[in-house]
Amino acid sequence: MKAAIVLLSGGLDSATVGAMAREQGFALHTLSFDYGQRHVYELTAARRIADALEVHEHVLQTIDLRAFGGSALTADIDVPKDRSDIGGTEIPVTYVPARNTIFLSFALAFAETRGADDIFIGVNALDYSGYPDCRPEYLAKFQELARLATRAGVEGRAIAIHAPLIEMSKAEIIRTGIRLGVDYSQTTSCYDPDTRGLACGRCDSCVLRMKGFADADVADPTRYQRDASPLASVEIAAREST
Amino acid sequence: MKAAIVLLSGGLDSATVGAMAREQGFALHTLSFDYGQRHVYELTAARRIADALEVHEHVLQTIDLRAFGGSALTADIDVPKDRSDIGGTEIPVTYVPARNTIFLSFALAFAETRGADDIFIGVNALDYSGYPDCRPEYLAKFQELARLATRAGVEGRAIAIHAPLIEMSKAEIIRTGIRLGVDYSQTTSCYDPDTRGLACGRCDSCVLRMKGFADADVADPTRYQRDASPLASVEIAAREST
Repeated sequence: MKAAIVLLSGGLDSATVGAMAREQGFALHTLSFDYGQRHVYELTAARRIADALEVHEHVLQTIDLRAFGGSALTADIDVPKDRSDIGGTEIPVTYVPARNTIFLSFALAFAETRGADDIFIGVNALDYSGYPDCRPEYLAKFQELARLATRAGVEGRAIAIHAPLIEMSKAEIIRTGIRLGVDYSQTTSCYDPDTRGLACGRCDSCVLRMKGFADADVADPTRYQRDASPLASVEIAAREST
Repeated sequence: MKAAIVLLSGGLDSATVGAMAREQGFALHTLSFDYGQRHVYELTAARRIADALEVHEHVLQTIDLRAFGGSALTADIDVPKDRSDIGGTEIPVTYVPARNTIFLSFALAFAETRGADDIFIGVNALDYSGYPDCRPEYLAKFQELARLATRAGVEGRAIAIHAPLIEMSKAEIIRTGIRLGVDYSQTTSCYDPDTRGLACGRCDSCVLRMKGFADADVADPTRYQRDASPLASVEIAAREST
């Protein structure tokens, strides 16, 4: 079995990507990060998902992006709630500077030492309207870099960066995951969960997830806090149907 | 004063680069890594150098490249001594997979949050004969990536990756540092120092450093272990004079 590296956040997207990589026959080496994120609860979910995927190896890296700050996820900045312009072109305050570059760099080290030529990441169209390091052109450039950065590249092998969700809507992602047996009750998406891991239901990530389940006509297994907003109150401008 | 990020290893090269960046008028934000390296002693040197450079801020990131291994610096693989083909085209076992990509990624996060458009790294011609992630084409590609990866890039600013030593010989680097007041007794280069920080004098890094001081006609301030080899016993094929 060929090895693949899968970046696993504990969220809905990366769990689906893991299932897709497994379906393609890869032996999975999953990688998660405790980076000082507000929603560190997601790492519990990442571990559960890795177990469910029967991965070959799960590595947790602990890094300190709070040393740099600059994001609502890594500094004392409030997570926006009930936003009316999710999916707009402005970079949201939940953007964590260079996070995907850091994650992919570690994935590259992991790939190089495991003889893996394939790295999977769960970015999708809903993300790349806001985050620069989720855009297809960014991922293509990282793949070019990977060839120059590694022994594999020098030896003429190409390391591929796979982002199979890049053009999928949340509903399409959920339907794909259901087909592949992903148990979404094990995943968490909220940027601002309470201490028990219950989702706020009001941050961008919760709202997009809720709407995804509604659009997919799948019961939402997420455990929300008591005061989560009703979905209908939020406009979503994201280009989901691309 | 404009801010610049400087990757500081504790070695001769990065200390020189720091002094060059300071001479250019930048406020320095230095960044070092405890990555599980065998020669963790270098971090003591990095701290001393940061103090001598009167940096604005020194950040130490602790990451775990031993989780991946694959190098004599991060796994139980002997550091080669008394090698006869230093500077050959083969990638040495001291290559740490994706290390510079990881370091530059963190530097990018640091730059983004400090409003810095300039990142300095001390790679040079002696390195890039062996390490894929020290080649000029690699650095140029990372700079392209930086533009796509960041808010700065989206806003039309370019983040520059400066590698001012890239074409310099060790002797030229040392002469430059001396002119700028670098105290090389504060730096350490050895891949395999003893517990007191004394250099082995026999690894590639020691040999290149020794030869640099000899070529520059500068007294070598390095404290060596008792059984360090005489310099004359080692051939150096590196293209130092480019």
